Amino acid sequence: MAEINRRIVLAARPHGEPNPSHFRLEEGRVPAPREGEVLLRTRWLSLDPYMRGRMSAAKSYAEPVGIGEVMTGEVVAEVTASNNPAYQVGDLVTAFSGWQDYAVSAGKALRRVDPALAPPTTALGVLGMPGMTAYTGLLTIGQPKPGETVVVAAAAGPVGSLVGQIARIRGARAVGIAGGPEKCAYLRDELGFDAAVDHRGEDLPGALAAACPNGIDVYFENVGGAVFEAVLPLLNDFARVPVCGLVAGYNATELPPGPDRTPVLMRAILTRRLHLQGFIVWDFADQAAAFGREVGAWLKAGRVTYREDIVEGLENAPEAFIGMLQGRNFGKLVVRVA
Amino acid sequence: MAEINRRIVLAARPHGEPNPSHFRLEEGRVPAPREGEVLLRTRWLSLDPYMRGRMSAAKSYAEPVGIGEVMTGEVVAEVTASNNPAYQVGDLVTAFSGWQDYAVSAGKALRRVDPALAPPTTALGVLGMPGMTAYTGLLTIGQPKPGETVVVAAAAGPVGSLVGQIARIRGARAVGIAGGPEKCAYLRDELGFDAAVDHRGEDLPGALAAACPNGIDVYFENVGGAVFEAVLPLLNDFARVPVCGLVAGYNATELPPGPDRTPVLMRAILTRRLHLQGFIVWDFADQAAAFGREVGAWLKAGRVTYREDIVEGLENAPEAFIGMLQGRNFGKLVVRVA
Repeated sequence: MAEINRRIVLAARPHGEPNPSHFRLEEGRVPAPREGEVLLRTRWLSLDPYMRGRMSAAKSYAEPVGIGEVMTGEVVAEVTASNNPAYQVGDLVTAFSGWQDYAVSAGKALRRVDPALAPPTTALGVLGMPGMTAYTGLLTIGQPKPGETVVVAAAAGPVGSLVGQIARIRGARAVGIAGGPEKCAYLRDELGFDAAVDHRGEDLPGALAAACPNGIDVYFENVGGAVFEAVLPLLNDFARVPVCGLVAGYNATELPPGPDRTPVLMRAILTRRLHLQGFIVWDFADQAAAFGREVGAWLKAGRVTYREDIVEGLENAPEAFIGMLQGRNFGKLVVRVA
Repeated sequence: MAEINRRIVLAARPHGEPNPSHFRLEEGRVPAPREGEVLLRTRWLSLDPYMRGRMSAAKSYAEPVGIGEVMTGEVVAEVTASNNPAYQVGDLVTAFSGWQDYAVSAGKALRRVDPALAPPTTALGVLGMPGMTAYTGLLTIGQPKPGETVVVAAAAGPVGSLVGQIARIRGARAVGIAGGPEKCAYLRDELGFDAAVDHRGEDLPGALAAACPNGIDVYFENVGGAVFEAVLPLLNDFARVPVCGLVAGYNATELPPGPDRTPVLMRAILTRRLHLQGFIVWDFADQAAAFGREVGAWLKAGRVTYREDIVEGLENAPEAFIGMLQGRNFGKLVVRVA
């Protein structure tokens, strides 16, 4: 066991794109578990777009990370010491212990990971928070019906890729939007999407319209910006829009130039009777068991597949995170910490 | 029976505010009912904001009125001749026969009006389309819970006034927005709203915030524009926004100046998990019986009250309609035709 706990803290709040100066690698002592606590050794750290929100002081659904505090994040960790009878050394668990090598926990917010069922990293991806985000948002708000068209952006990522695959399982047509021909080929050839549109292409609105000849019934929103502008004219009457993320705007420092197009959106909502609804995965915590059961079965049966983008070393987490916000990852971004 | 059928047709499509030149009063022969048809004599004509949409060629949930065609509208009419065994001379019905003295109907889209149950004009207001709009949108999408705060604009109108009263019946706090002190006093003193805010006052955002110390849980949207801007910052987590109308923008000829505030709305939807949903009353046609039963009972029991603004003479319908879009009516606007 290492004697040192490395941790990455928020050094400064970014204005616009984060860069390495906003993070700082610190070293400290490995904490000692007290009565009832366990010591967790981080094995894998999940990197997710929501973390950009936690770096800002703006009001959101969760408190911001304080300056000098460890960056927030979910990990798969191994219990390396235990004063809690519920956990034994060697157990694998998920924990929200952040960007660091070690943490102590009273054991209450831990979730067991069984490596015999699936690779442990899936607890951070297809069988974890991103997967449950896709499952709950698509099925509870999106409610795709057979023959309908479901569109999702960031479709090669852990949320989008599962949205499209579940849409297909439910009998809908899945159209994915992703950056670059390699990701688009992956969507079509490996995930079975009915169509894929490269948002870096010259004419996104035209390409999307061509990929959706019957319009769009469900748009799973996780990017916003130019993609949403291309989607809006194609939304059918009674279309559903689960609003899960707006990553295209997370680094924005000012609003887009005018005119103010809010009335265009509101008029579309009214005349086409659109249903827009924001959510975060914890709003649907009561669906966790159903999610694990159903997606676990699909995974086992080969009806759902996933892709991971593994980065080596905690010290490389900031650069990997910065790249993710630019779409440089290909699949679920995970840092192997130990 | 008059020998002449007066009808008001769309003379030209307005760009911006309608004025009298966009309407034309024509005279023609009273149509003769054929086999299976009835002749309807218009008694009262309902004037409603949605008609502004029908004057425009822009795509919406209904076809526009053609140039030279009779303006669309619902009426209470009396059967004055009948070749249909289901209807007798003297029967009162509602019909979508438009801004004219007479019309023939095959009887299929008629709804009987029983003057013994309530004044016939209520079939165009509290017990008609506006009432059902309030009932279905508020209860199905808004879903107010006891203790929650419900805000509605155009609150002295037929939709808004019922929204507030139903909110109160359901145990919620009702806050109405209306134009001028007289309407605000009516909301508080006669309809029992918990608070009323004058949108013509100097500081609408401040006044609304003061009237909603616990934020807003349901905002019944029928105006848009500056009112929605004042509402948005006050919406609580998980607030519901039935989008029923956007009358503040119906006469707009261009979008408001920039910046584009769409991302502000989308971010609010995401982080506060708002639920915005457009609807028109016909989407909830299956609730017609429940609406009539429940609101009818509230009306009879004095738990719901209403106000009408009666204009005399079909020839005055255009001016009354133009005034309604400016908020000049006070209560449900109805034209007494005969």
